[in-house]
Amino acid sequence: MKVLNKAILPKGFLAAGLSCGIKRSGKPDLALFYSEVPATAAGVFTRNTMKAAPVKLDIELLRRAGKFRAIVVNSGNANCFTGAQGMRNARTMGRSVASVLKAAAHDVFVASTGIIGRQLPVEKISLAAARLAGSLSSDGVRKAARAILTTDTCTKESTVRFACAGATVTVSAVAKGAGMIAPDMATMLCFILTDASLSRGVLKQTLRRTVADSFNCITVDGCMSTNDSVMVLANGASGISCNIGNARSLFAKAVSAVCSDLARKIVLDAEGATKLITIELSGARSGEEARKAALSIANSNLFKTAVYGENPNYGRVIAAVGSSGVACRQERLKVSLGDLKAREVRVKVDLGIGNGRVRVLTSDLTPKYVRINAEYS
Amino acid sequence: MKVLNKAILPKGFLAAGLSCGIKRSGKPDLALFYSEVPATAAGVFTRNTMKAAPVKLDIELLRRAGKFRAIVVNSGNANCFTGAQGMRNARTMGRSVASVLKAAAHDVFVASTGIIGRQLPVEKISLAAARLAGSLSSDGVRKAARAILTTDTCTKESTVRFACAGATVTVSAVAKGAGMIAPDMATMLCFILTDASLSRGVLKQTLRRTVADSFNCITVDGCMSTNDSVMVLANGASGISCNIGNARSLFAKAVSAVCSDLARKIVLDAEGATKLITIELSGARSGEEARKAALSIANSNLFKTAVYGENPNYGRVIAAVGSSGVACRQERLKVSLGDLKAREVRVKVDLGIGNGRVRVLTSDLTPKYVRINAEYS
Repeated sequence: MKVLNKAILPKGFLAAGLSCGIKRSGKPDLALFYSEVPATAAGVFTRNTMKAAPVKLDIELLRRAGKFRAIVVNSGNANCFTGAQGMRNARTMGRSVASVLKAAAHDVFVASTGIIGRQLPVEKISLAAARLAGSLSSDGVRKAARAILTTDTCTKESTVRFACAGATVTVSAVAKGAGMIAPDMATMLCFILTDASLSRGVLKQTLRRTVADSFNCITVDGCMSTNDSVMVLANGASGISCNIGNARSLFAKAVSAVCSDLARKIVLDAEGATKLITIELSGARSGEEARKAALSIANSNLFKTAVYGENPNYGRVIAAVGSSGVACRQERLKVSLGDLKAREVRVKVDLGIGNGRVRVLTSDLTPKYVRINAEYS
Repeated sequence: MKVLNKAILPKGFLAAGLSCGIKRSGKPDLALFYSEVPATAAGVFTRNTMKAAPVKLDIELLRRAGKFRAIVVNSGNANCFTGAQGMRNARTMGRSVASVLKAAAHDVFVASTGIIGRQLPVEKISLAAARLAGSLSSDGVRKAARAILTTDTCTKESTVRFACAGATVTVSAVAKGAGMIAPDMATMLCFILTDASLSRGVLKQTLRRTVADSFNCITVDGCMSTNDSVMVLANGASGISCNIGNARSLFAKAVSAVCSDLARKIVLDAEGATKLITIELSGARSGEEARKAALSIANSNLFKTAVYGENPNYGRVIAAVGSSGVACRQERLKVSLGDLKAREVRVKVDLGIGNGRVRVLTSDLTPKYVRINAEYS
């Protein structure tokens, strides 16, 4: 499927992005994604036990079997480790936006990203809510894509369109994330919007499978975030149901294409990175063992610094595989390193004992990564 | 117990160190530790499944219930991922030294550290064996301490002496390691020599317990090595048996003091580090969960870069605890960061739900670490 390098809102969606003053820099820090009609929703969230308040709130909202209207997102503050006040602030954030949208509070998801452990200045969001809703437009998605960024150097947008039953279905998404990226969800947010019509169950299953093969197969620094959220809203405005048969399969492919594209864009924009590294690991006893071994390589600082130095130190790949604890035998193991001088480096590892395989993306570890994260606060 | 900052050979031990040409720099790269009388031995080795040939050989030798005479060590080449040829080379290395010492091949341990995946130029060791044995002396331990280093900037030596039953018992050790340091044994070698008399069983148990609380509680970069080995030779030359009662307890304390001292020295010499970080984690459900949570913090690149930047970003501690998966509750968690401007930084974390506690040492992550490891080969 052809992936377009920008977000194009599906039918019945509007978006907006602006600056409400959370970021001292004055950069955009508040985004809104809105469906003109009630939409089915699904979400996949971080497995970090220190979940941020907005993550807890969204999980609670998704337990209701209802429909949803909007996602409001702020950057610059993660609203995490903020206790009961943080939960109240997350609710206030959703409620203030719901109120200007004439929606119920439980129809609006919230998401936050930024510094952990500081109270969210939610009054700034409440004050900006009317202006935010007033600036909703079909072009607003570019502004929304910008307003969710933190250390990212560029927006991450992706769209796939496919024809189905005589109509066009659009799947479009924006994401953010450049550090604190690790499997089981990265410090990343991703909002997927589609005008396909889907049942809750199919939407949830499609999202889970897609995330496993896209966002959960990337790592920048092995650090699992407290705020990771991938959410999808499906409003049915295309008139096309994608619950069964060919339509379902096309929809799954489109979601997968969009998420894989965004996962790659996140790694390409990894903090301080100079290389995109693709690790293709095969021959593991199972898919899960393949993923474990590949991530052990991808998270090895020694491996990542060697790639930065264009230093073909394949011993570090071997040490990382061995430390992962997966079944392997030295005499069966094959490692091949691609051209390390290139911007994109391919590493192939064959454990030679089974059929489990995986592809994992990561970046190199550079002095710039250290400097960015030494200074960030 | 008073810990002396240098290695002082116990009675009946000699040592030597020299350059045999494995390192292109011409720096010392071959060391020998020798007991004039047969000694009891024990060892703890890496759990990396890609164990180096010398590690496999030593494990094999230890299965015999015999006594031992020497440990020969080279730096500059890890003799790992070197297949059947690597095993033959490890045996040749031990045999050539045993031969000049008039010992049996199975009485001599071997250890290697350095680059992975290249064949050991064992002929250089064989050629130097007679010169090595010829230079054995009671002062030779300083040279041996130097000859086992790789990226280390200084030798790591430690000695404890205690009085027992009217005699003096000495426990002395040297270690190396500055990167690829992670629990379940770091890229580190440590050789402990003592003139106490011990049974195999007591020696083994004492070593295992000590390693768990010292070397397995440090991490520099989370990378588990293929060659980690901690070995002890006890030759009984003091005439004091430390198998039971007070003598056993004094001996255990001495080994623990020496190993904790060396573990700390390894972290102090961590590649590119500017800070020694002590993480004191308490209130976990168990000791094992305490260790897991503390190591999750200690291995977090985001935490380590924040300490490097003297940036009190305690959110990164929280995210790391949460990603470890151990039982904890946000409202019970307490984090306190000591003075980040100091050379030694103390981080206290109280999970507030149990009695499990641990102390873990680590270093900060710096641009220099990246540069050292980008260039090393």
